[in-house]
Amino acid sequence: MRDRTTAVPTRYELLAQELEQQIAAGVLRPGDRLPSVRQACASRGLSPSTVFQAYYLLESHGLVRAAPRSGYFVAARADGVLLAEPRTSKPQAGSQNVEVNDLIYAILGSARARDIVPFGSAFPSAGLFPLDRLRRALVSSTRRLKPWDMVEDLPPGNLRLKREIAKRYLRQGLAIPTDEIVLTHGAIEALNLCLNVVTKPGDAVVVESPTFYVALQALQRMGLRAIEVPTDCREGIDLGRLAQAIELHRPKACWLMTSFQNPLGSLMPETKKRDLVELLARHDLPLIEDDVYAELYAGNAAPLPAKAYDRRGLVLHCSSFSKCLAPGYRVGWAAPGRLTREVERLKLMTSLSGSIPVQAALAEYLQEGGYDRHLRSLRQSLQAQRASLFDAVTRHFPNGTRVARPAGGYFLWVELPVGVDAMALYSAALAQRISVAPGPMFSARGEFQHHIRLTCGQLWDGALERATRTLAQLVDAAQRADAPSQPSI
Amino acid sequence: MRDRTTAVPTRYELLAQELEQQIAAGVLRPGDRLPSVRQACASRGLSPSTVFQAYYLLESHGLVRAAPRSGYFVAARADGVLLAEPRTSKPQAGSQNVEVNDLIYAILGSARARDIVPFGSAFPSAGLFPLDRLRRALVSSTRRLKPWDMVEDLPPGNLRLKREIAKRYLRQGLAIPTDEIVLTHGAIEALNLCLNVVTKPGDAVVVESPTFYVALQALQRMGLRAIEVPTDCREGIDLGRLAQAIELHRPKACWLMTSFQNPLGSLMPETKKRDLVELLARHDLPLIEDDVYAELYAGNAAPLPAKAYDRRGLVLHCSSFSKCLAPGYRVGWAAPGRLTREVERLKLMTSLSGSIPVQAALAEYLQEGGYDRHLRSLRQSLQAQRASLFDAVTRHFPNGTRVARPAGGYFLWVELPVGVDAMALYSAALAQRISVAPGPMFSARGEFQHHIRLTCGQLWDGALERATRTLAQLVDAAQRADAPSQPSI
Repeated sequence: MRDRTTAVPTRYELLAQELEQQIAAGVLRPGDRLPSVRQACASRGLSPSTVFQAYYLLESHGLVRAAPRSGYFVAARADGVLLAEPRTSKPQAGSQNVEVNDLIYAILGSARARDIVPFGSAFPSAGLFPLDRLRRALVSSTRRLKPWDMVEDLPPGNLRLKREIAKRYLRQGLAIPTDEIVLTHGAIEALNLCLNVVTKPGDAVVVESPTFYVALQALQRMGLRAIEVPTDCREGIDLGRLAQAIELHRPKACWLMTSFQNPLGSLMPETKKRDLVELLARHDLPLIEDDVYAELYAGNAAPLPAKAYDRRGLVLHCSSFSKCLAPGYRVGWAAPGRLTREVERLKLMTSLSGSIPVQAALAEYLQEGGYDRHLRSLRQSLQAQRASLFDAVTRHFPNGTRVARPAGGYFLWVELPVGVDAMALYSAALAQRISVAPGPMFSARGEFQHHIRLTCGQLWDGALERATRTLAQLVDAAQRADAPSQPSI
Repeated sequence: MRDRTTAVPTRYELLAQELEQQIAAGVLRPGDRLPSVRQACASRGLSPSTVFQAYYLLESHGLVRAAPRSGYFVAARADGVLLAEPRTSKPQAGSQNVEVNDLIYAILGSARARDIVPFGSAFPSAGLFPLDRLRRALVSSTRRLKPWDMVEDLPPGNLRLKREIAKRYLRQGLAIPTDEIVLTHGAIEALNLCLNVVTKPGDAVVVESPTFYVALQALQRMGLRAIEVPTDCREGIDLGRLAQAIELHRPKACWLMTSFQNPLGSLMPETKKRDLVELLARHDLPLIEDDVYAELYAGNAAPLPAKAYDRRGLVLHCSSFSKCLAPGYRVGWAAPGRLTREVERLKLMTSLSGSIPVQAALAEYLQEGGYDRHLRSLRQSLQAQRASLFDAVTRHFPNGTRVARPAGGYFLWVELPVGVDAMALYSAALAQRISVAPGPMFSARGEFQHHIRLTCGQLWDGALERATRTLAQLVDAAQRADAPSQPSI
């Protein structure tokens, strides 16, 4: 109910707001009974009419429904069933030149204003990160920096930070020497450097379908062709189809996101990761593994990366602190195996080195401890936010919608009902100050015209609940408008 | 005389040290008389034998000479004349594929150890920079950063910092809109982005001869061909030869350093910069202007960049704070004129954005004032260091040596006597723990085999004086060894 444009809320609005937040937070779940009007009056010292007004308001927003002679209940889907999961893509076979940039820039640019509900954002809310503790680490680490450090660290980057990264790998059983870690300006630079090192213009590269748009941009920029391979929203890329594509198109590399893929949220099981690495090793094919979401898992332990099964130095593992610790610091890294020297040199040529003070700050933060505590709390927040968005989509979106159930990360991949166009929805939603990421961003061929990616990076509140409902209404309206001219099949 | 390995110096060593520093600082110049032994005893309360020991020590190091019955004088060159300036290069006509990397990496890698005299370094001593004040700006600016800033600033970069940069342009009469400034990871990223935007593989690009090795690396990496144009150590590139090269080879861009060129130190006069911009405009040819040394001038005002004469948005002006304020922060920018959007997009694709905390810190530092005061002091230090190195080379290097007299920056370009090979000198010097930058680093064809670049970025002291002398002895030895087999011509 919180409305950024209104003044002081009335009593009934306050009550409605409170209940809405409890629904959003999952305290009250679909089917749960709201307090009776008598209970609510007694516990809060309100008049019955105030309580009724609050419940009417919630009902008008579709959040609760009245059951005759039983009271008010949190609304569930009319059909009582969960939405199905999106179907696995069937990209056209063959490799494809990439031409996606204008669309992506327009979309990224449109989602930046502060008053827009950021379902289209690529970042979770910065409020989820320990910015104060990072700042203190920045203060104390720069106090200790000697003039010499400002120059000595330049090409190789902060050695302490590399050691901390190597230690975290080691905890997962990956023995990666410190000098096989190349510090970069975020994972994006790491990925671009790795791709540059393993390809030359005209080469074909395997990507997932759908795939992270930065991969498509990189392919386009470097004159590479994309081989899009079907990718399941639970288990990731289809290894059978991947094997066929390798035989057929002789790609020079694969760029895959093996854990909590963007946008699908898929998590490749560990045995599948092992099989993937073995398949690629048989073809001596490098894997650029984009692993920036690995820490955002829902279970008990971080999923192992494919890199864990790499015996031949063929996996170029890329990650960063941007999604799990320090979004604006822009510190990432590559562990490029046997291609480390090549990546290091390319880095030296194109941007020399990372920023010394921020690298030192992250090293200090990691050495002090507390990172794992922060990660636990971040994972809990994201899990609650994922559940809230999933619930809201389930409650509001019309039948025929399909939604993925990722076990980590902060994206929900939504397949819209037949006939609803993602680009049209993107524009209509933006007119309502809501951003979404339309499916065609994630394909070299502009496929996924009936898909959107929603981000659950914000603390769930009434504004997000309302925005989900507005989106659902737009989907519903688009579906109805489409129905006469284009019957469902 | 200060020796990093000895313990407490004796009295005579202290006196020798003091005099050596006065010579190094230019207080005592070649030909000046040292205090008489009597004066020195009286003013310092020393015994005559202590003073004599100090003078003998200085004499043994070639710093002073005894004139019979007149006392001791600061040594000058035996011939009493200044060394000539290096001759302008005569690179082969035609364009050239570039293949320089291995040499450059080996050289850059070898010069990093802390105990090496860094005549080969690309950076001045970090002790010349206001690291404490920068740290305080980092502390106070990050204290004010809101979580939202950590994400909002991502693609466009810190707007305050862009404004401060635009204000500094404006003080020079350049009206550059804030949104035509693209913040980058140092000038190296800016230069690479600009080059990438204006060329495609196989294109030819004009560079100076000699040129900054990062330009050669970039050309090689992008599959571009280099057209090396003769460049004078006073006034920069030869415009007549440039015009011919444009007609003949139809390059797609020029990459030039118009003020205090690396390695020559040349400063293109402003009328020549204007003529350059007009020449390029007639051919609709973009100029990538690497201007990182502009603030390190010796006169009364910073030289105007070629960008100041650009009416058509064809000059992509690149600079940074790495050489004049904050070496390890890695904050630079491009002002790419009409190609701003293209550069911005490429930046977004390849490294997303700069580091938010360091950008905010520099914005704060610049807003607080004091930057100009720092720059004045930096310029004074560099001028003194340039003079000291120049004097030392003049005093110690053998006849036939030629040395440039740059009016800014911190490099001295030295043409060695005929027959002395720069790579051999580089290796011999490294064995003595002295780094130099050998000429072939600065040429696509490995030319400048008899040139070295010396860096005067350190506060001048006895160790540098000694290192210069050692270098001179190595040059002398090489010349003698060469003499029988290859007579001078």
